Amino acid sequence: MAKSKTQSDVGLIGLAVMGQNLVLNMADHGYTVSVYNRTTSKMESFIADCRANEPSAERVVGYAELKDFVKSIAKPRKIILLVQSTAVLPEDRDAVDKTIDSLLPLIDTGDIIIDGGNSNWNATIRREKELTAKGYEFIGSGVSGGELGARFGPSLMPGGSKKAWKSLKPIWEAIAAKVDAKTGKPFEDYAPGKPITEGVPCTTHIGPDGAGHYVKMVHNGIEYIDMQLICEAYNLMKRLLGMKPDEMSKVFDEWNKGLLDSYLIEITTDILQQRDPVNKRKFLVDVVLDTAGQKGTGKWTSGSALDLGIPANSIAEAVFARFLSAIKDERVAASKKLKGPKNVKPVRGKKALIEAIHDALYSSKICAYAQGFQLMAEAAKEHSWKLDFGEIAKIFRGGCIIRARFLQKITDAYTKDPKLANLMLDPYFKKELHRCQENWRKVVSLAVLHGVPTPAFSSALAYFDGYRSAVLPANLLQAQRDYFGAHTYERTDQPRGKFFHVDWPEPDRPQLKA
Amino acid sequence: MAKSKTQSDVGLIGLAVMGQNLVLNMADHGYTVSVYNRTTSKMESFIADCRANEPSAERVVGYAELKDFVKSIAKPRKIILLVQSTAVLPEDRDAVDKTIDSLLPLIDTGDIIIDGGNSNWNATIRREKELTAKGYEFIGSGVSGGELGARFGPSLMPGGSKKAWKSLKPIWEAIAAKVDAKTGKPFEDYAPGKPITEGVPCTTHIGPDGAGHYVKMVHNGIEYIDMQLICEAYNLMKRLLGMKPDEMSKVFDEWNKGLLDSYLIEITTDILQQRDPVNKRKFLVDVVLDTAGQKGTGKWTSGSALDLGIPANSIAEAVFARFLSAIKDERVAASKKLKGPKNVKPVRGKKALIEAIHDALYSSKICAYAQGFQLMAEAAKEHSWKLDFGEIAKIFRGGCIIRARFLQKITDAYTKDPKLANLMLDPYFKKELHRCQENWRKVVSLAVLHGVPTPAFSSALAYFDGYRSAVLPANLLQAQRDYFGAHTYERTDQPRGKFFHVDWPEPDRPQLKA
Repeated sequence: MAKSKTQSDVGLIGLAVMGQNLVLNMADHGYTVSVYNRTTSKMESFIADCRANEPSAERVVGYAELKDFVKSIAKPRKIILLVQSTAVLPEDRDAVDKTIDSLLPLIDTGDIIIDGGNSNWNATIRREKELTAKGYEFIGSGVSGGELGARFGPSLMPGGSKKAWKSLKPIWEAIAAKVDAKTGKPFEDYAPGKPITEGVPCTTHIGPDGAGHYVKMVHNGIEYIDMQLICEAYNLMKRLLGMKPDEMSKVFDEWNKGLLDSYLIEITTDILQQRDPVNKRKFLVDVVLDTAGQKGTGKWTSGSALDLGIPANSIAEAVFARFLSAIKDERVAASKKLKGPKNVKPVRGKKALIEAIHDALYSSKICAYAQGFQLMAEAAKEHSWKLDFGEIAKIFRGGCIIRARFLQKITDAYTKDPKLANLMLDPYFKKELHRCQENWRKVVSLAVLHGVPTPAFSSALAYFDGYRSAVLPANLLQAQRDYFGAHTYERTDQPRGKFFHVDWPEPDRPQLKA
Repeated sequence: MAKSKTQSDVGLIGLAVMGQNLVLNMADHGYTVSVYNRTTSKMESFIADCRANEPSAERVVGYAELKDFVKSIAKPRKIILLVQSTAVLPEDRDAVDKTIDSLLPLIDTGDIIIDGGNSNWNATIRREKELTAKGYEFIGSGVSGGELGARFGPSLMPGGSKKAWKSLKPIWEAIAAKVDAKTGKPFEDYAPGKPITEGVPCTTHIGPDGAGHYVKMVHNGIEYIDMQLICEAYNLMKRLLGMKPDEMSKVFDEWNKGLLDSYLIEITTDILQQRDPVNKRKFLVDVVLDTAGQKGTGKWTSGSALDLGIPANSIAEAVFARFLSAIKDERVAASKKLKGPKNVKPVRGKKALIEAIHDALYSSKICAYAQGFQLMAEAAKEHSWKLDFGEIAKIFRGGCIIRARFLQKITDAYTKDPKLANLMLDPYFKKELHRCQENWRKVVSLAVLHGVPTPAFSSALAYFDGYRSAVLPANLLQAQRDYFGAHTYERTDQPRGKFFHVDWPEPDRPQLKA
């Protein structure tokens, strides 16, 4: 086994693609990295690959034994785990815990363990507590941006003590994605051995213990709805306008030059012009099966919204839309039995409708992000975290999947007003919602009349219309609850917290029915 | 303390309103009931109340000491708990567990403990396992119908062993609501001391361990969406047609004579004509504050849908709608900033629109129930329960909050085809959905154009349109996932389970952007 002459700057355990790419990213930035993998052959083939292909290979050192790996790292040690986490409940113990347990006899107090996996924030809170009680430091860090992000610049969302963050900060800032300080646009002219060193790094200390993983989870929930919104826009162009993928690609390319400028719109542009490798006369998207997978973070985000009482309906709709996509055979069978609307007026005005879909997408996106930020705000209250939403939007500007020009506007909004009650109320977003709403309503109305499902567009609009309703029909609902369950109600003409009950005509009901 | 000469038929612990009413219901049906409450004064005042007001008071015997209470019950003892449950996770231990723990030293093997509270099914599964391991029997039974249901006839959903059910069955069948065997309509001509003894009882053995509490939970989730749908219908009549409560009451009264005939429509009719006790010139509903409370079962149902991968979006939307109702002050503030649509065409054709709202409500209701029954089906698979959906719909016909003529149609559907893939595919419901859809789409479209939030109507329609879509836009979504995360995709022209990946143009991206 190779052995470094001096000690390594940092160690990493878990050499699946994300782990490998983070290692290479750190090495490109001049850090020497010790690496370890439970299955030694995986480490060995990674090291061999590095030597063959990577300009920074000399700074990556593999170890077959955990104790040698630990010894090789300069103190206080920084050991990054990229190990698959399965724990959901705080008390679940998984591979991350097992890895930590195997490290504890070997490391020293003051050493820092960094969990860079998609761990549930509950597990991270528990681990941070357990490890700091023993004198170790622990950081749970969201790492967003997929494989490419990990390799050349992810968005990094660390949660843990300030002391631990101070040690990790130089590395995290070096390897994070960078955006132009003035425009907020990510620098992307990277290559192996040629990392980007200028610009503002997409990482910041999110908060204590589970805050980083919580924010990463909400990022993923937003990613779900962002993707679903794009899919609905695509589906409307396809079904209402009969557009082909390459024609739609041009539309998305146009959109990517404007307000919707973002990574997901950009890759959609690419995807829609991709030919099927099997038959170049076809577009690949047309032969991809319409069943979407998922790994659980959207579900967690929706579950957390339910637990915290936050109306994040569009994020949940995006998760449910994936569920519905998964039952392909059932849908195909149902499509032969359940018919759509008849005698629908043909759609006119292609250009205007495309513009309307653009506006529907943009305004729905504003609402979806509003839901995500409301959720983070409530979680912060729940856990006594102090979250800086301007900073969080800032680090989403580069590296991560939801990176978008739009995020600069969110940063601006929270910088102007850190206590903003809801993103929709920021003057810029308010203006955009007002500008877009006619088109937005037109699109949802058309979709509904034509039988094209738009759960994300519709739920976002219901959120907007619900949020701006001084009066909702919950008065009737609460009266119903008082009627059958004596749950009491409050009155509009009395102070909050005073509860009333009426003897609804239950004892007399048989008479009333006559 | 009074002491019965012979032993009691059954015991009940927990004398809050639900417990008291179940006791009186059993006594009215000829059972002698021993009662116990942790706070003795509550038991004493209940006994005093009984003596003063209840024809069956002689059959209710109170005990101040738990050991005397236990001794007084004939073996094998049947002890019903109506104790507030707070456990959510299987390992949470709450007041139900404490009560059970206090009983164990006093009871004998073969005795049956029946939990009639709103316990989480996970806790019920755990308790059943723990108690049967010790030789006791345990039943977790949903009890639906609010206070009035408990008093004169609830819908009862017991889960547990067949042996335990055999012992409990006579009592449960006696006190359950009854429906006419031919029409399926509940008998409601009851009064204290005059219980209904004819008809088909609304109880059946749901399945093992947590099955009863699970089905009760889904019942409550359906109740949430049922109520939300009625609220949206009310809100549309109010906001699009400017109708007053008493005028709407007449509409609901009409509806209650037709397809929508149900308890919730019936009480809505009552509520909308109820005058404000403070100022008789006002309608009470107009002064009830529009903030709806909740106790968690809707949240559990939605959480379970997320966990099991079932697209129960409308049930979740109903929960989120309650959350949105709760932030009244925020909404009032937002209503001054976020404006609705301008230059909306006035609504014409009041009668036709009311009919359209009726159809929107009915078809949304079909979809919501479809979601609830899909969820039960998936939970049955998950837990290896055998659920008889025809029987379940049958016992919902009387006693419970969602009782409705409609449920007979669900029973019919599952009786004809116990393996029905989805309620919407049953010939009757399919026909109704086809008949209603034009009106349904018209209503949602109008609501959207006029800025009236209809999350339940819209999400149900999106569910219908999604379910009947042979092709959804998840092909694009899965291509995106493969693009940024190498998650792979399946192909429409290849067998399921074969996964493909394309080298999306990521390495060349900087060029592509030129």
